[in-house]
Amino acid sequence: MDFSPESPYAFLSDEEVRAWYAYMKVQLRLRYEMNRQLRVDHGLSLADYDVLVALVSDEGGVLTVSDLAIRIGAERSRVSHQVRRMTQRGFVEVRPSADDRRATEVVLSDVGRETMTAATPGHVALVRSVFFDALTADRTRELAESLERVYESLIAHGTLPRPADHP
Amino acid sequence: MDFSPESPYAFLSDEEVRAWYAYMKVQLRLRYEMNRQLRVDHGLSLADYDVLVALVSDEGGVLTVSDLAIRIGAERSRVSHQVRRMTQRGFVEVRPSADDRRATEVVLSDVGRETMTAATPGHVALVRSVFFDALTADRTRELAESLERVYESLIAHGTLPRPADHP
Repeated sequence: MDFSPESPYAFLSDEEVRAWYAYMKVQLRLRYEMNRQLRVDHGLSLADYDVLVALVSDEGGVLTVSDLAIRIGAERSRVSHQVRRMTQRGFVEVRPSADDRRATEVVLSDVGRETMTAATPGHVALVRSVFFDALTADRTRELAESLERVYESLIAHGTLPRPADHP
Repeated sequence: MDFSPESPYAFLSDEEVRAWYAYMKVQLRLRYEMNRQLRVDHGLSLADYDVLVALVSDEGGVLTVSDLAIRIGAERSRVSHQVRRMTQRGFVEVRPSADDRRATEVVLSDVGRETMTAATPGHVALVRSVFFDALTADRTRELAESLERVYESLIAHGTLPRPADHP
């Protein structure tokens, strides 16, 4: 690691730099491994999977593009593009919202739900083996608490609203 | 949150589900906020910044495309595409490797280094305000330790090698 003044993280404490490096290393690798497994085993990208998770988590499997963007934490234009590709593959359908005809709703299809159900066991097994098998129950609880604090801070200081269904 | 059998995370313990939701929520939001700030303030994407960080961290500011892909945890084709765009903007240059003429080296340019230096204070300030201001020193140390364990697990069970300069 690089602690020279030129280092991008020279303005954090040593412990913060250490935590930040660990976080970024985990985040980049974990995205790579999850994306790879979903692609190889199910022809899905992690971005596809993020959309399917958001829709499955929502009651009824319906979200507007705007709400989906807030849930995933992505630009609206990026989500529109992503949804268009997923429509072509039959994972979702789009329709004008009944509440607001200018808004577009994204609806989970049976194919999308079945694909999600098929992909889930392998995905969860990966998460367990690379993430939770490395942590004791105490560390898992502590990690959950710390990350929930960070999330609240992201809501308080960030630019996106809290998703409607996130407590 | 959804703990029904249909939930993608029904096979983890309650604490693990809680930690995983917190991790994913933080990860997605944090990427969004970092990307947004870099774009608005400096015309950089988070993907650009990840490449610049990897090059600055490396002695001499030179990495092969393959080593860069391993560092960032991205597919080689994606990194090649990313590097091509960054070359057009003058942040990096590419050249054949002196060691292996078939390999392409990515070299940080003066413009890339200056852009990085200009973007860093705002980026670090964001990281501090949304991430570390939410955590005590004890929590920061615990988080660093836990994520380092997860990273070692990713190296042990994942498909990418350890980067040469990551201890």
